[in-house]
Amino acid sequence: MNFQEQYQAYLTQIEAELGKQFPLPELLQKKVFHAMQYGILDGGKRIRPVLTMAVCDMLGGNLADAARVGCAIETIHSYSLIHDDLPCMDNDDMRRGKPSCHKAYGEDIALLAGDGLLTRAFEILAEGGTMPPELMLRTVKEVSVAAGCYGMIGGQVIDLSCENRKDVTLEELTELHRGKTGALIRVCAVCGCLCGGLCDESDEKVQKIVAFSEKLGLAFQIKDDILDVIGDEVSLGKPVGSDAEQNKTTFVTLLGMEKAEEELTRLTAEAKTLLAGFRDAEFLLDFADYLLERKN
Amino acid sequence: MNFQEQYQAYLTQIEAELGKQFPLPELLQKKVFHAMQYGILDGGKRIRPVLTMAVCDMLGGNLADAARVGCAIETIHSYSLIHDDLPCMDNDDMRRGKPSCHKAYGEDIALLAGDGLLTRAFEILAEGGTMPPELMLRTVKEVSVAAGCYGMIGGQVIDLSCENRKDVTLEELTELHRGKTGALIRVCAVCGCLCGGLCDESDEKVQKIVAFSEKLGLAFQIKDDILDVIGDEVSLGKPVGSDAEQNKTTFVTLLGMEKAEEELTRLTAEAKTLLAGFRDAEFLLDFADYLLERKN
Repeated sequence: MNFQEQYQAYLTQIEAELGKQFPLPELLQKKVFHAMQYGILDGGKRIRPVLTMAVCDMLGGNLADAARVGCAIETIHSYSLIHDDLPCMDNDDMRRGKPSCHKAYGEDIALLAGDGLLTRAFEILAEGGTMPPELMLRTVKEVSVAAGCYGMIGGQVIDLSCENRKDVTLEELTELHRGKTGALIRVCAVCGCLCGGLCDESDEKVQKIVAFSEKLGLAFQIKDDILDVIGDEVSLGKPVGSDAEQNKTTFVTLLGMEKAEEELTRLTAEAKTLLAGFRDAEFLLDFADYLLERKN
Repeated sequence: MNFQEQYQAYLTQIEAELGKQFPLPELLQKKVFHAMQYGILDGGKRIRPVLTMAVCDMLGGNLADAARVGCAIETIHSYSLIHDDLPCMDNDDMRRGKPSCHKAYGEDIALLAGDGLLTRAFEILAEGGTMPPELMLRTVKEVSVAAGCYGMIGGQVIDLSCENRKDVTLEELTELHRGKTGALIRVCAVCGCLCGGLCDESDEKVQKIVAFSEKLGLAFQIKDDILDVIGDEVSLGKPVGSDAEQNKTTFVTLLGMEKAEEELTRLTAEAKTLLAGFRDAEFLLDFADYLLERKN
């Protein structure tokens, strides 16, 4: 299989898993199940579960476990977007070319749908699967730390504190994104290792795979910042220039476009170098290039 | 030890556990840690962890495990109050006699503090403890179901759908509170059993203890509805009559005060009867009376 075919094969398994995990029961509270589906079953690149599955696949692990764990992480990503779009946060009316969740369902239901997705993610991690209980428990621990105040939420709080400040440093911006986008991408690699049977954090292989994901996560954000300046509105599904309009500090405003692109290329190359000693790393190497070259 | 002394002994262990679980690290995002502490370290009766510990204690289990699991459930209760108080939900400015979290920290930080508490709860469930991994995983599963869209969140959604309706039935109201307040109280009993080594749901002892908690949860809500009519504002820490002001359907509006009090007394008596065959049930029997007689 070439890269595109393999990506599609992962996607098919991911969408099937998500479809299974998010039914629409006929209950008095069905509106919140609709809003959760609206948030999670909206397509997208699914880069988090793809990364989880690809790492597991490279290590010869059980792909059904990786799909389940990856979908739990995607569920957390999805909740974070719903809460981020709320009026008290970024106040975004549109998400991927359609009304954001609170525009479609109201703020109260959107808040609860986000809470419901976050809660459901941990239920998904705790259920089924062929992994031994101690490893499943490890995924709960790793994902909760990554999604919490030392990880994703922490990054969002730093983001809020940087609003309307003109003196944000490169160090602060990097710390912000290490949490806000980096922590969930990193934990995909950690969980891919766990699903693939690599459970010792101090193992050199684990360290290389995790370092790969850290560089990928930072590169991903730099690319996002670049696309917000030179991207195509149709591909992006949102207006270009929103960062500038909101006076946001980005890697482009701090480094300039040329240096930001250099940094993106350098991080991607360094990430790929970390996988030099692995067999069957082709997909992950291509995945790094795919993220570098993406248009949205 | 009498009931008061035992309650105090549980409380001391609970507050120590919560203090340990919610430090204030010197990080760029420390504001969210402050807001989380504000929400969780505010005293209160701690009836959820007390119930978890008391069930475990009756069964001769490890109390440190029960304190940890009970505090995770209390953490979820605490997040739900913060999100419930937000302007897009109940829009409450006061909570237990002090400004609600979003009044003290702003809506954005309150939203993230709630998200942070929910996430942290699962981290607490996944860490440390003397329980075998498969039982710790069971607590993750049970708590996520109870806190999710089939449980607490589901109840909140039904609550929203009942607003400004005059035709809410007793059946709907019961289903609402089975989720909104009942599910977390029930899972305290379930987890108390797990911490006490009773892991088989079909076990008659487990069924009795869980049924006890279900009746207690419903009685708890009826008492809340009664206190909202005849309570003392100073004891309650909030204005009396807020349900009537918001045109809420309650057990008092549906049944009348006299029948609501009869129902409360009946449910409490039935709950206590379920524990007839247990040794060392004194505390839980007194606990049921304590909830019946409470002033806030």
